[in-house]
Amino acid sequence: MRWRFLPRQSDFFDFFERHAALTVESARELGRLSKDGANFQDVARRIKDLEHEADDITHACMETLHKTFITPIDRNDIHRIASKLDDVIDLIDGAARQLSLFEITALPESAREATVVLVQATEAVERAVKGLRNMKNATAILGECVRINELENQADRIKAASVARLFKEESDPISVLKWYEIYRALEEVTDACEDVANVIEGIVLEHA
Amino acid sequence: MRWRFLPRQSDFFDFFERHAALTVESARELGRLSKDGANFQDVARRIKDLEHEADDITHACMETLHKTFITPIDRNDIHRIASKLDDVIDLIDGAARQLSLFEITALPESAREATVVLVQATEAVERAVKGLRNMKNATAILGECVRINELENQADRIKAASVARLFKEESDPISVLKWYEIYRALEEVTDACEDVANVIEGIVLEHA
Amino acid sequence: MRWRFLPRQSDFFDFFERHAALTVESARELGRLSKDGANFQDVARRIKDLEHEADDITHACMETLHKTFITPIDRNDIHRIASKLDDVIDLIDGAARQLSLFEITALPESAREATVVLVQATEAVERAVKGLRNMKNATAILGECVRINELENQADRIKAASVARLFKEESDPISVLKWYEIYRALEEVTDACEDVANVIEGIVLEHA
Repeated sequence: MRWRFLPRQSDFFDFFERHAALTVESARELGRLSKDGANFQDVARRIKDLEHEADDITHACMETLHKTFITPIDRNDIHRIASKLDDVIDLIDGAARQLSLFEITALPESAREATVVLVQATEAVERAVKGLRNMKNATAILGECVRINELENQADRIKAASVARLFKEESDPISVLKWYEIYRALEEVTDACEDVANVIEGIVLEHA
Repeated sequence: MRWRFLPRQSDFFDFFERHAALTVESARELGRLSKDGANFQDVARRIKDLEHEADDITHACMETLHKTFITPIDRNDIHRIASKLDDVIDLIDGAARQLSLFEITALPESAREATVVLVQATEAVERAVKGLRNMKNATAILGECVRINELENQADRIKAASVARLFKEESDPISVLKWYEIYRALEEVTDACEDVANVIEGIVLEHA
Repeated sequence: MRWRFLPRQSDFFDFFERHAALTVESARELGRLSKDGANFQDVARRIKDLEHEADDITHACMETLHKTFITPIDRNDIHRIASKLDDVIDLIDGAARQLSLFEITALPESAREATVVLVQATEAVERAVKGLRNMKNATAILGECVRINELENQADRIKAASVARLFKEESDPISVLKWYEIYRALEEVTDACEDVANVIEGIVLEHA
C-alpha cells in the first residue's frame, strides 16, 4: 500500500478517480517513448510502479465493496468499472514491458500515432469516470463514451495500416513479427478503454 | 444519417433488426470475395458504407434509450445487444479493410470456408434478433444460439487447420504472417456473433 | 449425453462443479505434455472427449435453467458462469488441437511453465466454484479470485518473456510464428479463468 489514507467510507468515486488518474499517467509515460532519446527500460519501470499503485486501489475498492452495505450505484456496476479500469493499466504495463523485453530503442511514426490515440482514450475515460458522481452529467458522459468509441476505431485503422506497411516494407520476418506484436499490444489498450466506456455507457443509460 | 424515418418511438426491436440486416448484408459482401474475379477494393468500400449506416442505427438506438422512460426489455440488455451487434459489423469491416490493405486478390479454399461459416453465423444472429419481439419464441431463439455456438466451434477448427497448413506449406514467412492475420480476423467475426448469442441467450433465459 | 442421471432439479451448483472438475482434468492432461515422451495426439484426443462431456453439461445446465422457475442465484449469473466456464475448456481443447496440428513433440521449458500456471488457475476456479454453494464462504471465494488474477499476471509475464526469448534466439521465422501462436493459446486459457473469476467475484460482492 503506497497511499496511506483510505478515502472516506464507501466513496467509490474516489477509488475510480484515483485509478483513472494513474491510468492516464501511465499512458502518458508510454507516450513519452515517442520522444527521441527516451529510455525504454526506465519508462517500463515507472509504469510498473504506477500499475502496482493502481492494483492497490482496485483491491481496496473490492474490499470496501465487500464491507459496504449501501452503495451509490449498483454493486455489480462498481465491480465492473473497477475491474475494467484495471485491465487498461495492466495492458499499458504489458505493452511497456514488451517494448523493453524486445529491446526497442525508438518508435516509428505509426507507433507514435498509436500512443497519441491511446493517451487521448485514457483521458476521455478519466473525464467519463469523473462525470459519474452526478447523473446530471449524463449527456456529457455519453459524449465521452462516443468519443472513446471513435478513438478505438482510429486505433484500429492505425494498426491495420501499420501492419500492412510493415508487411510491405520490412524484409526481416522476425522484425515483422516483433512489430506486429507491438502494434497489437498498443491497439489492445484503446480496446480496453472502449470496454470501460461500454460499462459506463450502460450505467448512465440505466439511470438516466 | 442515411435513413430518414426514425422507427416509432422506442421500438428497439426495429433498431436491432435493421442493424442485423446490415450485418448480414456486409457478411455476404465479404463472402462474395470467394468468387473469382472479385474486386477487393470495391467490396471493402461497400462494407464500409454498410458499417457507417449500422453505426448511425446504433447511435440512434442509444439516444432513443437515453430519452425513453419505459422499455420493453431491460435497459441494460438493450445497450448490450446494440453494442455487441455493432462489434460484429466493425470486425467485418476490419477484415475487409485488411484484405484490401494487404492487396489480396484471391482467397484460398480455407478462407472461403471461413467466410461461408461467418455468413451463416450472421444469418443465425439475425433470426435470433428477430425472435426477441416475442418471448414465446424462446425455444427457437435458444436453438439459434446453440447453432451460433456450433458455428463458432467450426470457425475455430477451420482457423486452426488453416494456420497449421499455412505453417507447413508456405515458405515465405511474410506471407505466412499475412495469412495468419487474415485467418485470425475472419475467425474473430464468428467469435463476435457468439458474444451476441450469449447476450441474447442470457436475456431469453432470464425471461422464459 | 455421457452421464445418465440428471442432478436433482435445478441444482445448478452440481452442474458447475462437474464442469469445473472436467476443466481441471483437461488442464492436467495438457500439463502432462510437459513430461518427456508424451503423445500429443493422444492427449488432444482425451481432451476433446472431456470437452464434449463438458459441453453436454453446459447444454443440460442451460436447458434446466430454461425450465426452472426459482433459482438459487440470479438466472443471469447462472448463465454467465456456465458460459464462461465453458470458454475455459474450449480454449484448453483449442490449445491441445493446435499443438497436435503443429506436430509438436516436446515443450520447451517456458511452455511447461505456462501449463503449470494454467493448471493452477483451473484448480483455483474449481475451488471458487465449489465455494458458491454457501455465501458464508465469501472471503475464501474472493481469495481464490485474487489468486486467479495473480496467476493471470504470471501467465502474461511468462508469455511476454517467452516471446521475447523466441524472437532473440530462434532464427527460423516459421518456427517463431508457430511458437508465438502456441504461447498465445496457452496464455488465453489463464485469461479465460480470470473471466470466470470476475463473474464469480461480481456475484459474491453482490450478495455478501
